[in-house]
Amino acid sequence: MNNETKNRIRKFTIDRNWEQFHSPANLAKSISIEAAELLECFQWSDTDFDIQDVKEELADVLVYCQNMLDKLGLDEDEIVNMKMEQNEKKYPVEKSYNSSKKYNKL
Amino acid sequence: MNNETKNRIRKFTIDRNWEQFHSPANLAKSISIEAAELLECFQWSDTDFDIQDVKEELADVLVYCQNMLDKLGLDEDEIVNMKMEQNEKKYPVEKSYNSSKKYNKL
Amino acid sequence: MNNETKNRIRKFTIDRNWEQFHSPANLAKSISIEAAELLECFQWSDTDFDIQDVKEELADVLVYCQNMLDKLGLDEDEIVNMKMEQNEKKYPVEKSYNSSKKYNKL
Amino acid sequence: MNNETKNRIRKFTIDRNWEQFHSPANLAKSISIEAAELLECFQWSDTDFDIQDVKEELADVLVYCQNMLDKLGLDEDEIVNMKMEQNEKKYPVEKSYNSSKKYNKL
Repeated sequence: MNNETKNRIRKFTIDRNWEQFHSPANLAKSISIEAAELLECFQWSDTDFDIQDVKEELADVLVYCQNMLDKLGLDEDEIVNMKMEQNEKKYPVEKSYNSSKKYNKL
Repeated sequence: MNNETKNRIRKFTIDRNWEQFHSPANLAKSISIEAAELLECFQWSDTDFDIQDVKEELADVLVYCQNMLDKLGLDEDEIVNMKMEQNEKKYPVEKSYNSSKKYNKL
Repeated sequence: MNNETKNRIRKFTIDRNWEQFHSPANLAKSISIEAAELLECFQWSDTDFDIQDVKEELADVLVYCQNMLDKLGLDEDEIVNMKMEQNEKKYPVEKSYNSSKKYNKL
Repeated sequence: MNNETKNRIRKFTIDRNWEQFHSPANLAKSISIEAAELLECFQWSDTDFDIQDVKEELADVLVYCQNMLDKLGLDEDEIVNMKMEQNEKKYPVEKSYNSSKKYNKL
């Protein structure tokens, strides 16, 4: 997300005085709620989905993720790179190639 | 997310030949699953959470969101700005100031 | 669920003095978390799942649902029948036969 | 749930010819989606919730759980008792009394 977009999200919250509702726990609930609305696009079919609905619900997830990054003062690239380093170790290429098994069953 | 981080995520998938598992429906399930693991950090307390766990689970959500953006050829800034425009209309400042009510109950 | 099973769930909570953690909000989080673990059984395939895992995760969802019924003093049959009455009206047979559309799109 | 209620749920599905949509994977998605709607009752406050909304959303979770039990030919009491036996071992009273820690951190 570029800085302009991030600032639009921040301004939206500040303008409505909504920081008071943005506890980390409430934001975690919100991410789960929006993730489920995204999942609802695929509730009865894996292939017959409305792309506009998907865009809107995925955007909602991303907005609440940005809210949580801001709330906790986290840097997106830092935490994602830290996690990717773990993932690269947990899923060595030779063991996980072509396999959807979880790391503890590889 | 900067391009280097995005490319690391993409390389991780390609190296393991995992594009075959990344249908939009499977990625929607994955986002919900990781969002729930993030929520688990706050299962029994809103305030007593492990920040390292939160970082890792939030990163997982973001990685799967990036996978979905890539899979569907979407631009994060475009869809977030489109959604923020809707949000700004659904939640006018004068009506929603200090209020956590849903737009249909404002 | 028969009364013996319900009482086993209640005794489990009481023996550990866990009523203190069972706020309705915490139980709602817990139901979502366990529902996501159930979903994880189907993360990468709709058909190739481990039935034992499914049983355990579905049981976890049901246990937390029972905890919430108990916490709020609700009768399962009463609330389900109330909801089924709504569903029967929202989804008239002639309109919804063979269709997976949501009621607001019928 | 008593047999009359279970049969009402079954008749609802059969009357609409909806068994075709009730794959275990779709029902798992549905349970997650409804669980998130239940969570939404507590999105911004743990204590200020609408009990009628809670009843309806909890009922939706229970209905889809019953659909899954039926689909997979499972007995609710059997799977819940199997899981409670595991829980009783994973959470010994002396270690877990007054504690909300997960079994792997006890």
